[in-house]
Amino acid sequence: MKQFEFKCTGCHQVQPSDSWNHPCPHCGEPVEIGLDFADLTEERLRAVFDGQVRHGLLGKYAPLLPFSEEDSLINLGEGGTPLIAADTVGKRFGKVRLYLKNETANPTGSFKDRGTVSGIQRAINAGIEKVGTVSTGNMATSTAAFAARAGLSCLVLVKGNIKQEKLPPIAVYGPEMYRVDGNYGELYHKSLEIGTETGIYFIISDDPYREEGAKTVAFEIYEQLALQAPDYVLVPLSSGGHMAAVIKGFEELAKLKLIDKIPQVVGVQSEGCAPIARAYRQGMKTIEPWENPDTIAQAISNPGPPSGNRVLRKLLDEGRGDIVTVSDEDILAAQLDLASKEGIFAQPAGAVPIAALKQLATQQQIPEGATVVSIITGLGIKDLSVVHQLAEQVGTLKLSELREKLVQ
Amino acid sequence: MKQFEFKCTGCHQVQPSDSWNHPCPHCGEPVEIGLDFADLTEERLRAVFDGQVRHGLLGKYAPLLPFSEEDSLINLGEGGTPLIAADTVGKRFGKVRLYLKNETANPTGSFKDRGTVSGIQRAINAGIEKVGTVSTGNMATSTAAFAARAGLSCLVLVKGNIKQEKLPPIAVYGPEMYRVDGNYGELYHKSLEIGTETGIYFIISDDPYREEGAKTVAFEIYEQLALQAPDYVLVPLSSGGHMAAVIKGFEELAKLKLIDKIPQVVGVQSEGCAPIARAYRQGMKTIEPWENPDTIAQAISNPGPPSGNRVLRKLLDEGRGDIVTVSDEDILAAQLDLASKEGIFAQPAGAVPIAALKQLATQQQIPEGATVVSIITGLGIKDLSVVHQLAEQVGTLKLSELREKLVQ
Repeated sequence: MKQFEFKCTGCHQVQPSDSWNHPCPHCGEPVEIGLDFADLTEERLRAVFDGQVRHGLLGKYAPLLPFSEEDSLINLGEGGTPLIAADTVGKRFGKVRLYLKNETANPTGSFKDRGTVSGIQRAINAGIEKVGTVSTGNMATSTAAFAARAGLSCLVLVKGNIKQEKLPPIAVYGPEMYRVDGNYGELYHKSLEIGTETGIYFIISDDPYREEGAKTVAFEIYEQLALQAPDYVLVPLSSGGHMAAVIKGFEELAKLKLIDKIPQVVGVQSEGCAPIARAYRQGMKTIEPWENPDTIAQAISNPGPPSGNRVLRKLLDEGRGDIVTVSDEDILAAQLDLASKEGIFAQPAGAVPIAALKQLATQQQIPEGATVVSIITGLGIKDLSVVHQLAEQVGTLKLSELREKLVQ
Repeated sequence: MKQFEFKCTGCHQVQPSDSWNHPCPHCGEPVEIGLDFADLTEERLRAVFDGQVRHGLLGKYAPLLPFSEEDSLINLGEGGTPLIAADTVGKRFGKVRLYLKNETANPTGSFKDRGTVSGIQRAINAGIEKVGTVSTGNMATSTAAFAARAGLSCLVLVKGNIKQEKLPPIAVYGPEMYRVDGNYGELYHKSLEIGTETGIYFIISDDPYREEGAKTVAFEIYEQLALQAPDYVLVPLSSGGHMAAVIKGFEELAKLKLIDKIPQVVGVQSEGCAPIARAYRQGMKTIEPWENPDTIAQAISNPGPPSGNRVLRKLLDEGRGDIVTVSDEDILAAQLDLASKEGIFAQPAGAVPIAALKQLATQQQIPEGATVVSIITGLGIKDLSVVHQLAEQVGTLKLSELREKLVQ
């Protein structure tokens, strides 16, 4: 049996491993899983990092996760996403060697699937029969899909005023699903409380098992860059859980002596909802909730990010990473650049790393020739509201006018 | 320089290789590329089929394609899609060993990307600067995305009465795009004609280069099944180009002596638009256009499939494959089964192989224990109209009622 411990990222108290592993009961900060890799031989490690990324991340990376290879590990084809060179955009913005880690190729079209498969596997191992989520977007879709795949019950709670068209892409997986009228922040905390009472495991954004799955994106980037770490990784920043997981992944590669320098991980928030960036600029150790979130990047619009303080500690105490903010105008431009120059249609939230790259390059904060990986987190087709006006640019012709129009 | 020839699949006349390779000028049937693999050493072949599928199919399969490894091959992360075991659905329908080839994980969410990357590479090699497509769905999205990636101009022609919401997911890639009023069939033929005049390369469904890219799905299935062919491959059937390509892929594996038996490839049409199935049942060698297509499976609703006769020749003359038809009711049930039992949300057209499996199992046409691969061709989120009613099943609660509802 593999050894690992649950430790609070805030007060550093070790938690009983059979708890729900939700925020630390002492200080409320996220709990992390610590693996010591003591049993991992050099030979086994080389076999894991064979340079071949593939689908089914629990199988490939089991020795680096809180799972055993003997578990019947679930696999919906998650992970193993493409890393592609993006020379056109890379040369335009700062002459960097830009790569896109296309997480939209995951089974439900977003990076969430990595953390979800890990949370679902934990549920299976612990004999938990019902999982839950409070979300209206990527997280809900991902949790409902993997629960269906694993044959677990799934509870999805969404805001009372959610747009009708957001429901079918979640409901199709067959979860138990309710709109809940009332304050969304309250709903989140109430749900966790009831979850603990009723045995429903909410695989929330800062759940330690979700982080374990999410960190594998760092492993894949390392393998896809021919066993090298990039200089910079740009990642959309919302709850803070994803950015923390990316940093954890590279920290573990360093701990395993596979890389000697941890990349600069840059979290990108939208100016319209930037609670972590604001606290960081003010040198604060704790975030304050953002009052009136207003941004087209819905998927990263989290006014009270549960892993916000954790990210601040990484930045302020450990000197890891950076945070930048970008405007809606720049996000939209980045979304269109990504589609029209590189052929990838991302959600607005998934395009924020490109908006950030433009900004960092303009301010010469990334040196020429640096290797930069932008994590493209979610599919554009999930959120067509911001691009609906493009339909107006499509002209109309009669069939009889076609030749004249094209033969010029 | 690799040797290959262009040969009509109907009258077998060899075409000049510098032609547009569109339907045969003598008989109008699709032209195919013949590769002799004479230069391919056994060692090189083993290196290609190393059991590691990966993104960028032109790079991996170059020795089996009409491209050279020295070309600067484009790569948007297409191919290398997951093949996952689907035990729940497999055991339910006929106790077969069912695998899902999840083509929705391609960069634009459908199988079309395989053929498109090949067509775009041909355009680059031939110095063609503008490509075109007549489509409103998967094909248009795919062609526009890869043209953007390659820096080529792209022309997209759509029906005059297309729904407004279908335009932005294509327009986002920045093609030149027109709605064209008039008969759709006429538009298709007129476009090809004008394309030849103006030097616009329409990468249509039965283009020989599109087929070359599309055939790689057979190679990947073989590799993902540990270098074995399955017994059956179920594939949605529309223009006929995809099914013909899947058969060609397995035929080439047999020609290379990698497999000794070509799987039974079963094309699946919707009852509401089944011109190829109808001709096949009637023992006809040529299809008649379907009068009033009416099916929820929009992406396979092609009333005058350009590769229809080619598929019939495969079935009738060469004894390859089979065709079945399924009802809209069964398609919808299959779509919901796939999502709620296996966690994959496919377009209705992408779910038809599951509807067909149910039918074939019921009629005991697939023996127990057979290995069956269903190709899931396109993402469900591309077409939400058929599942919109699921929103009505979502209940509403007050936050204060939540505990009572969940603690039972």
